Amino acid sequence: MPTNPAWVKALKESGRPGSKCLELERTKSNVDVDKLASFLFTDKVLERNARLLEILKSEPVFDKTQNYFRGRESRIEASLARGKKLRQLTVKHKWTKEEYNAANELMGEPTPYGLHASMFLITLREQGTPEQHELFLKKAEAYEYIGCYAQTELGHGSNVRGLETTATWNPEDKTFILHSPHLTSSKWWIGSLGKVANHAVVMAQLVINGRGYGPHPFVVQIRDMKTHEPLENVHVGDIGPKFGYNTMDNGFLLFNKVKIPHANMLARFSRVDPNTNKYVRPSNPSLIYGTLTWVRSNIVLQSGSVLARGVTIAVRYCAVRRQFTDRDAPEDEVRENQVINYTMVQQRLFPLLAASFALHFTGRGMIELYDANQAQMQKKENPGKVSEDAGQTQRGAGPEELNPGADLLADLHSTSCALKAFASTVAGEGLEVCRRACGGHGYSSFAGLGSWYADYLPTLTWEGDNYMLTQQVSRYLLKSARAVLKNQANTGNFNAINSDNDTTAILKTYKRRQDVGAAFDVLGNDEDLVAAYAWRVAYLTFQALQHRDEEKQSWNSLLVDFYRLSTAHAQYMVVKNFQGALSSSSLQSQLPTQTKTILHTLFRLYALHTLEKEASEFFQSAACTIRQIQLARTKTVPQLMGEIRPHAVRLVDSWKFPDWQLDSSLGRYDGDVYADMFKRASEDNPLNNVVFDPNPDSKTLFKRDDRGDLRSKL
Amino acid sequence: MPTNPAWVKALKESGRPGSKCLELERTKSNVDVDKLASFLFTDKVLERNARLLEILKSEPVFDKTQNYFRGRESRIEASLARGKKLRQLTVKHKWTKEEYNAANELMGEPTPYGLHASMFLITLREQGTPEQHELFLKKAEAYEYIGCYAQTELGHGSNVRGLETTATWNPEDKTFILHSPHLTSSKWWIGSLGKVANHAVVMAQLVINGRGYGPHPFVVQIRDMKTHEPLENVHVGDIGPKFGYNTMDNGFLLFNKVKIPHANMLARFSRVDPNTNKYVRPSNPSLIYGTLTWVRSNIVLQSGSVLARGVTIAVRYCAVRRQFTDRDAPEDEVRENQVINYTMVQQRLFPLLAASFALHFTGRGMIELYDANQAQMQKKENPGKVSEDAGQTQRGAGPEELNPGADLLADLHSTSCALKAFASTVAGEGLEVCRRACGGHGYSSFAGLGSWYADYLPTLTWEGDNYMLTQQVSRYLLKSARAVLKNQANTGNFNAINSDNDTTAILKTYKRRQDVGAAFDVLGNDEDLVAAYAWRVAYLTFQALQHRDEEKQSWNSLLVDFYRLSTAHAQYMVVKNFQGALSSSSLQSQLPTQTKTILHTLFRLYALHTLEKEASEFFQSAACTIRQIQLARTKTVPQLMGEIRPHAVRLVDSWKFPDWQLDSSLGRYDGDVYADMFKRASEDNPLNNVVFDPNPDSKTLFKRDDRGDLRSKL
Repeated sequence: MPTNPAWVKALKESGRPGSKCLELERTKSNVDVDKLASFLFTDKVLERNARLLEILKSEPVFDKTQNYFRGRESRIEASLARGKKLRQLTVKHKWTKEEYNAANELMGEPTPYGLHASMFLITLREQGTPEQHELFLKKAEAYEYIGCYAQTELGHGSNVRGLETTATWNPEDKTFILHSPHLTSSKWWIGSLGKVANHAVVMAQLVINGRGYGPHPFVVQIRDMKTHEPLENVHVGDIGPKFGYNTMDNGFLLFNKVKIPHANMLARFSRVDPNTNKYVRPSNPSLIYGTLTWVRSNIVLQSGSVLARGVTIAVRYCAVRRQFTDRDAPEDEVRENQVINYTMVQQRLFPLLAASFALHFTGRGMIELYDANQAQMQKKENPGKVSEDAGQTQRGAGPEELNPGADLLADLHSTSCALKAFASTVAGEGLEVCRRACGGHGYSSFAGLGSWYADYLPTLTWEGDNYMLTQQVSRYLLKSARAVLKNQANTGNFNAINSDNDTTAILKTYKRRQDVGAAFDVLGNDEDLVAAYAWRVAYLTFQALQHRDEEKQSWNSLLVDFYRLSTAHAQYMVVKNFQGALSSSSLQSQLPTQTKTILHTLFRLYALHTLEKEASEFFQSAACTIRQIQLARTKTVPQLMGEIRPHAVRLVDSWKFPDWQLDSSLGRYDGDVYADMFKRASEDNPLNNVVFDPNPDSKTLFKRDDRGDLRSKL
Repeated sequence: MPTNPAWVKALKESGRPGSKCLELERTKSNVDVDKLASFLFTDKVLERNARLLEILKSEPVFDKTQNYFRGRESRIEASLARGKKLRQLTVKHKWTKEEYNAANELMGEPTPYGLHASMFLITLREQGTPEQHELFLKKAEAYEYIGCYAQTELGHGSNVRGLETTATWNPEDKTFILHSPHLTSSKWWIGSLGKVANHAVVMAQLVINGRGYGPHPFVVQIRDMKTHEPLENVHVGDIGPKFGYNTMDNGFLLFNKVKIPHANMLARFSRVDPNTNKYVRPSNPSLIYGTLTWVRSNIVLQSGSVLARGVTIAVRYCAVRRQFTDRDAPEDEVRENQVINYTMVQQRLFPLLAASFALHFTGRGMIELYDANQAQMQKKENPGKVSEDAGQTQRGAGPEELNPGADLLADLHSTSCALKAFASTVAGEGLEVCRRACGGHGYSSFAGLGSWYADYLPTLTWEGDNYMLTQQVSRYLLKSARAVLKNQANTGNFNAINSDNDTTAILKTYKRRQDVGAAFDVLGNDEDLVAAYAWRVAYLTFQALQHRDEEKQSWNSLLVDFYRLSTAHAQYMVVKNFQGALSSSSLQSQLPTQTKTILHTLFRLYALHTLEKEASEFFQSAACTIRQIQLARTKTVPQLMGEIRPHAVRLVDSWKFPDWQLDSSLGRYDGDVYADMFKRASEDNPLNNVVFDPNPDSKTLFKRDDRGDLRSKL
């Protein structure tokens, strides 16, 4: 690697060093970083992460120095090596699943074992019978069978029912024949399939005696256990480079009439009786349906820290970076202003800072609700053994599969859809705002923002496309509104309806007060602020209902309204959860007063900034007046920004991202931004080991090439 | 490279093939693609591009098959080879600068010669004296001197006055001493510097006798002409990987007291007299200032086709892709719906389709205005030789440098700032919307969207950061408003002001009618629609003026308002230019009626969709009523979407992007999306030449590696 000459090594940054800037920021605020971190994550989790971090940092294979320089091939090769080491460490230290996941998160990139360790194991466990656990799960847990979950096809994403791959029951020899009738039937995007899997759970249309029974899961061996070459009549490979996620071997898979034994159809919920050659119906679809909610709830919870990672980098760098003198400063004032002092920068970053906490608390609220509900359901419906892992199966399954009695579950499902769509959009788009707030340097890979953003983007599409999901939410809200109206017609009032879930409650409140009007003190009272959000949801719901049921507008013509409705519902849930967390006894008892005060400021900023952004809906629904919106915009929100300003750095500190995880010059805890940028560019950069030949007529590209075999090294 | 087995080769896509889908789309519309293309670009340009395309496609070095697979090092090596070939072809075919640029654009990536061919040559030409042309420009034009333009520093982006690199005049031996006093003084982000330049134009603070005279341009040799190694006391290299733009060698540069002769300070506008050791002031700064406007106008013009490229890919793929049956379709209808039929998809894509035309016409309008104004100015101020190239120097220079008489120029400058910020933001963010509208496959590199987006993003930052620029626009609008008020105070009416630029005109109109109110028929009349946009700009301007001048609010506290004001001004200019283009005699005479009608529909969609999006400002300013906004949202905009739907594919066809340029599976003209995706993934993908060893305990990564020396090949 190239080294810098002595005169370069002696150079310092000009003006106040970045380290001094952050030090000053930290002295100016009394936010209790450790207590807040402990409240966000618990001490146990923080200690666990510190312990895992030390283990990872001591292993050379996890060295990150060359991460940003590598091309796709060497990235995935490094990632394969890291995946192996992660597995070895898991065995050595007897890591739990949580510890394994936490270590992987600290490492910061998916490995080719990722879908084996999650979806493959989960699906075998959840959908396999005890006999199948013996057959497949044991070997999979020992990493002898390495697998993936093959659902999406080249021609079919969200619409699971449209899958083309068939599994045809052959009564003669009691086998299934897996087949890909078209090019578009090729499995596509399947993580861990491209290069590492030797088995796959394949979702295929079950066909018995010429009749289709819909998509079902089948375990299929795809590669030879010795040579790892594809088996005969199996065509499998990596689908090529992507915008991000390039350490994962997303793959394609085609079958040419491949036979598998009867035992390979995962048969916990439905199966083919090999004697009668008849299909046996699923016994309990609502449990499967619950796990979808669990997966989405986790996306909501993660979205907070996903966004917080970007906000941490941007806030720290904007406190280090100085640019221009304040226009109102005296002429002879030459010191440049910290970028974070500019209101335009605050306007971009502080609502995202507030959103990171809002989403975290919302995700936590979702998980708690899910757990409570799941426990209750399992008591009622399935008093036997409960699987530990919540998995996700038959993605895209909708409320139709609902057990009609499961009123709370349907509400939870709808809420998880709305929040998944909203939270991942806010986090994904927020990361790009953070990147741009870092100015030109945000574009450098060393910012640590571009790759994080690019790797996160698929979350907006998977586990239900963020646009598609809003239809499910609206369908549920319309259904709830119809029930409220029907009950009112039957009973003469809005209280008698036999349901106490939150959605029904806000719809009833709206209907009761519709002719009285709302008078919410959105600027002065937190409960009123939350109530205004609820009011807007109810207003939009009954509006949509009128379009659909009375005006008989087509479903398609209402999709834009549905998107807005679902977003409004999600925003309501977020402010409600944030407010609920603030008034919870655990927060009240664990945090010092000043820290509570600033969290409350973040809540108000989040709620009022969103209200101002969505002004026209709040105004149209009469949830508040134009004057209130104007005041929020011109007075309250700017004032809240000013109150947050001195605490911004300590607030991001409380997320406790280790530098090793951030892998960002701009986001370093110590503020030593420029020296780190310079070191990475000049000393770590393999391109500086070659000298180009710049003459356009020369036959060579290089005057000197000192890379040696660097490119074949890991 | 791997090949697909025969049974795979025999597979076809299911249902209606993509090629048939696009064929049907094209038969359903009567938009005259060729005439519209000819109107957008002229036949001459279209023929030129076709000729260049044939030349490029016949050269193996331009083969794109491996582009998406290469890592940074091999990408920039390929790009160096392509840059060389491009230069050789320029010499061979005697290409003009326009032909060279057009060829480079078809090729689709910046080469390491990029900044030599643009900024280095332009700066030498524009800012050098005839003697300096002899000394430097001749060799630079012959690619003997290869150079770059070194302004930005590690610690300083937009704020040119804060640059730290010094050029100290040494009266004893009549030299300048170039020096980098701090680490943050390192030049950074400089295109063509990292690996290819042997010379640089360096912007450095001129110091004479201990006094600073601000930043000036100096020609500095940085590498040896034979070995291409850095000269003594020069530290130079590549700054490492970026989010995009990775075929360019953006570089860093530090000087340790490097001496250069007196002749190396570019002296056309200001210089040091070597006899008196005195600074000689710039003779004509406004000409420099004009070239900034030219550069920004070009960004506006390009933004249209930058966006159109993304819209082309997304519209074609959404017409091929089918997903879910329509919810209102009969139960037995199994054929899935084209994605482009969903209103939520239309809501995302069609306003961008309209914006691509709007921005193109706006850019064209800007260039025409610029040309007319420049001709007029040069007649007045500088009747001598006029340089052919418009360059950009001293980026970040603001209206302060304005020649006070140049009223129209100031207006043009402000408009170009507002439009540059707005247009590049719309194009950049729009590309990401297009990518997501393609669903999961939009994430594949083969979509051709991710890299195009990532490469375009720096445009939002360079030539004036999009947020920073809005301050210049607002400063100018406030100044204009003060002049209008002052004139009114002096003369008693709003007509007497001695200016006829458009900004003054809309401010006067507003003031005249302020107490009468507006009554714009925004839904029924195009001129009224444009006038409503003007009204909103004037309203926001006088609001901001009141905050600043009467309420004495700080500049910093108004930055968010300024951003909104500048955006409003840009949106006004865009609808005005679009409407102007529609009513121009050239359009009226060149296009058939149906094509004109659909362009008019696009205009209305663009203007009304934007109005609805910015509802609260339109309503607050009383430019229109809440009822009009509601009607726009619920009736007019959806209706316009429906009118555009059948013409969407032909409209994007009229941008005439060759498949070779798009390099996108999803955006292929023939709609053969899936076969192309499959071929690239399976046959072109070098990762499919290796077999991984998936055992986590094995010491090896591969069971088989057939790449041979592929990775060292270009």
